[in-house]
Amino acid sequence: MTMAKRDTYTPETLLAVAVEVFNQRGYDGTSMEHLSRAAGISKSSIYHHVRGKEELLERAVGRALDRLFAILDEPGARRGRAVERLEHVVHRTADVLMAELPYVTLLLRVRGNTRTERWALERRREFDHQVSELLRAAVDEGDLRADVDVRLATRLLFGMINSIVEWYRPDAGAPAAGAEVSDTVVRLAFDGLRTS
Amino acid sequence: MTMAKRDTYTPETLLAVAVEVFNQRGYDGTSMEHLSRAAGISKSSIYHHVRGKEELLERAVGRALDRLFAILDEPGARRGRAVERLEHVVHRTADVLMAELPYVTLLLRVRGNTRTERWALERRREFDHQVSELLRAAVDEGDLRADVDVRLATRLLFGMINSIVEWYRPDAGAPAAGAEVSDTVVRLAFDGLRTS
Repeated sequence: MTMAKRDTYTPETLLAVAVEVFNQRGYDGTSMEHLSRAAGISKSSIYHHVRGKEELLERAVGRALDRLFAILDEPGARRGRAVERLEHVVHRTADVLMAELPYVTLLLRVRGNTRTERWALERRREFDHQVSELLRAAVDEGDLRADVDVRLATRLLFGMINSIVEWYRPDAGAPAAGAEVSDTVVRLAFDGLRTS
Repeated sequence: MTMAKRDTYTPETLLAVAVEVFNQRGYDGTSMEHLSRAAGISKSSIYHHVRGKEELLERAVGRALDRLFAILDEPGARRGRAVERLEHVVHRTADVLMAELPYVTLLLRVRGNTRTERWALERRREFDHQVSELLRAAVDEGDLRADVDVRLATRLLFGMINSIVEWYRPDAGAPAAGAEVSDTVVRLAFDGLRTS
């Protein structure tokens, strides 16, 4: 039974289980014993795939970060006026957050106690910084209002986007489909609630 | 020494220490022993003030909830067009969040494991619901756009406001003063980033 189960595990499926446990218990609160029980395989079977829980964390947040940084290389993020590139990035960031929900959730909860966590925080800051620069460029081009502080606006913008992880569930009873959520984020961020 | 310290404690100052510990360790992860150490008084001295840690939680989130609900009774929230009342509530919610930072932070982290936590979640939902109704009324009066789902817009709006607890620090090196933060939240929420 254990053997049969172990055989079905790939690094990918083991990662999915680990991310679920990390999100439930917190990374600090998760032991290899917890991971072994959740996966239904022995600890030594897990060590067959990875060196330990920090490697699982690194792979998990690395996946979220890779998906996020890939947005900045998409054509929509590289061509056109800064405001259009920013709109593309905001829309796609919300998309990626929902498509990679458990991975991005874990990334957003990272606090910086280990080397991997500090690396993840550093990469997040770099992503935020690049978006912030895009916002600044759009202000300079006259398409975004100059009467808001760019850093503050970036923080609030990410606050709105990142809050999606608190309530969005792709399955059962999602209050809005993913595409509607991303569209609404872009609409609110750029044009606000008021009728124009 | 211990006696002297105990004498200086009031239910109010004990509450402030408890909230700090709850926010650091999480409510579940906090024992009376942790509270006793942080306050520098014996457990029995704490029991002199409160029945236990759940009462401290109840008082702490109760304080945050009282301040938030009081906003809905302010003249600015009761008179005028719905859009103006909503603007007032959004601005003041951000104000209260920053003025009562540790208390609101604790409220936002409550997950619902105990009776008190479930009560707090219920009250939060009620507050969100009242804001959502105000948003709906402003749409009906034609002042807010009808092409966004009211529930979704309310979630994103609170996502933006509540995210302030993640980075706002009233002391050392706050990137923006409280008033500027509240003003920017209102500006972004109602008019968006784009130049009009």
